[in-house]
Amino acid sequence: MKPNGIITFTTDFGDTDGYVGIMKGVILSINPDARLVDISNQVPGHDIGAGAFLLNYSYRYFPVGTVHLVIVDPGVGSTRRAIAVETDNYYFIAPDNGILHYLFQTEKDVKVIDIQNRNYALEKISRTFHGRDIFAPAAAHLSRGLPIDELGPHITDVEHGKITSPEIDADKITGEIAYIDRFGNLICNIPGFVIGNRSCSIQILDFQIGKLSDSYSAGDPGMPVAIIGSSGYLEIAVNKHSAKKFLNAALGDRITVHFNGHGEQ
Amino acid sequence: MKPNGIITFTTDFGDTDGYVGIMKGVILSINPDARLVDISNQVPGHDIGAGAFLLNYSYRYFPVGTVHLVIVDPGVGSTRRAIAVETDNYYFIAPDNGILHYLFQTEKDVKVIDIQNRNYALEKISRTFHGRDIFAPAAAHLSRGLPIDELGPHITDVEHGKITSPEIDADKITGEIAYIDRFGNLICNIPGFVIGNRSCSIQILDFQIGKLSDSYSAGDPGMPVAIIGSSGYLEIAVNKHSAKKFLNAALGDRITVHFNGHGEQ
Amino acid sequence: MKPNGIITFTTDFGDTDGYVGIMKGVILSINPDARLVDISNQVPGHDIGAGAFLLNYSYRYFPVGTVHLVIVDPGVGSTRRAIAVETDNYYFIAPDNGILHYLFQTEKDVKVIDIQNRNYALEKISRTFHGRDIFAPAAAHLSRGLPIDELGPHITDVEHGKITSPEIDADKITGEIAYIDRFGNLICNIPGFVIGNRSCSIQILDFQIGKLSDSYSAGDPGMPVAIIGSSGYLEIAVNKHSAKKFLNAALGDRITVHFNGHGEQ
Repeated sequence: MKPNGIITFTTDFGDTDGYVGIMKGVILSINPDARLVDISNQVPGHDIGAGAFLLNYSYRYFPVGTVHLVIVDPGVGSTRRAIAVETDNYYFIAPDNGILHYLFQTEKDVKVIDIQNRNYALEKISRTFHGRDIFAPAAAHLSRGLPIDELGPHITDVEHGKITSPEIDADKITGEIAYIDRFGNLICNIPGFVIGNRSCSIQILDFQIGKLSDSYSAGDPGMPVAIIGSSGYLEIAVNKHSAKKFLNAALGDRITVHFNGHGEQ
Repeated sequence: MKPNGIITFTTDFGDTDGYVGIMKGVILSINPDARLVDISNQVPGHDIGAGAFLLNYSYRYFPVGTVHLVIVDPGVGSTRRAIAVETDNYYFIAPDNGILHYLFQTEKDVKVIDIQNRNYALEKISRTFHGRDIFAPAAAHLSRGLPIDELGPHITDVEHGKITSPEIDADKITGEIAYIDRFGNLICNIPGFVIGNRSCSIQILDFQIGKLSDSYSAGDPGMPVAIIGSSGYLEIAVNKHSAKKFLNAALGDRITVHFNGHGEQ
Repeated sequence: MKPNGIITFTTDFGDTDGYVGIMKGVILSINPDARLVDISNQVPGHDIGAGAFLLNYSYRYFPVGTVHLVIVDPGVGSTRRAIAVETDNYYFIAPDNGILHYLFQTEKDVKVIDIQNRNYALEKISRTFHGRDIFAPAAAHLSRGLPIDELGPHITDVEHGKITSPEIDADKITGEIAYIDRFGNLICNIPGFVIGNRSCSIQILDFQIGKLSDSYSAGDPGMPVAIIGSSGYLEIAVNKHSAKKFLNAALGDRITVHFNGHGEQ
């Protein structure tokens, strides 16, 4: 894999304070040819779980050789490590706090580096903005061809974070709401493939949904439907309205898929 | 017209969930040289009228050969068509739901294609995210020179949407608020040229404005003024304050321009 | 200094209405090779002080030859001038209203031009959107190599704005909150170097902070700490929470640094 010059941003820095702009300035000072693409800088503040989930359903759509810069970093200034990761198709730069959780669960042949080499950081490193001082420079150097091993030593004991995996039983799967999007769609941590095409009903809070549908518009107007969403995960939606508001739902709320007997649907 | 490699985004996808970032990844996977510019991804959710109006006052400022990707798509997953449009100067990729309303009213020699050719879509097409699976790939292919006819058959029966045009009478024009901007300025669907330089007064809700002014600061401090705004449309503003709040106004509220006699101003 | 083709945006235009997108279209029509980077388009509306402060801690991170386009412009349409500035390392395009306050205080050898040459503006200049009609074209022309003197005559009487500098006494420094970031951190107009490493206590509103700390996490959990932030300025923060909410603080609130005796810390 060769870097392609693209660097993406997935952060909780928002777009008001210039923090992402500053990182872009740092990157362009190191690699003037870098091409910079925001995935999202609106991850809920310090929410590692939501950021990890958002990254997980997004990063595969970029071309091989993209550097993904991922910063949700409540522990900045503490002893948490900064890591660089190389998979078959991508590079990642992130704090070692679980934000790459799904990646470590699904990608093989992952090389992880503890970013210790300060030759590839800004000269003065602050206590509070490693995005600018360490992460952005590392991403910029990778994007122009620096071998990842130059950034520091290999490690194998990465932090997986406090991210809940669904419980999978013969007759049911119990998961939770992992992400809520702008439209109020509730995206759960249950991948579609573990449900497969089995007949099921879905319980979320006190609400029962009788089956899995094909599209937002399949249900009764204004009522929640359960679908396998574009992210590949189970999703509760209300066509043209907010499922979040309808169900008064929040991140972490439990969702259960009950299978109806053992036959195919 | 040759494509210039620029693709713009006008959507209601917001900037929190990564949806626009994913589309950019898809585009860069197809056309690594594409240059991506957001017009706005904050069109009010599912509001075809506001999106159409915003696009209308924006798209002409881009260089000839730009591809405008426009997605406000409450009908995703239904039978509404996806269309590609070629005008003298631009390409447009959009759902066929009225979001290109103003374009069809003002541009001549418009070629419209029903995007049916799945060779230029992602392999797996979801029910809920055609932006990623159909629209972004089509825009990427156009931006690297694919002839628009390759995307599908010509059509002539485009959907114009439920967008109200102003009523133009000899003594008055009746229109409505078509867009409200960040500063609370109320932009109406009445183009400046239909008023011309005739003497007039403007009624909005219960409020009367005695004349058309030249600039925000022309009126009494803190009071609404009517101007022909930078978009070329009639606009109600309060200098350094929000006309929306002052008048408690909303999208769709009626506005009437009354002409004073028949002479020039 | 040669322009490097990068143009940054620091404005209060928001990202909903397409105004920044339109400016980018104008720029790409003049300089198709321009590379466009947002610093922030979310400066609080018409807040020259906050915009000036944000720009000040951001612009130095960009490579030499960058054009910084800075528009917070409550006086658009009035007689305020549009200016172009050249420093040793950067160009700036802005209204002459104090938005470049800190720049004029810290940069030497600053050349300031009153942008009067309408050959480098759009043909039709509106009263309300000089960002599109005057500022963006000027930035685009600079970025492709136009000598700054072509834009208009030199001036020396720039507007410094109503931006308060801290009062520096032997035993105390009195400043104010100059910026509040997304995380609720309170950034003051007191640069770290004027405090140096002297022992001090900090008073903000009714709250006393006994010393200057090294990092967010140095204080009691949930309690405010004072640090020299990543911007180089005194900052009041609550680790993983909002100091703004904790202290019910607002822009302009007074902050006082009291020195403890005359010794080094």
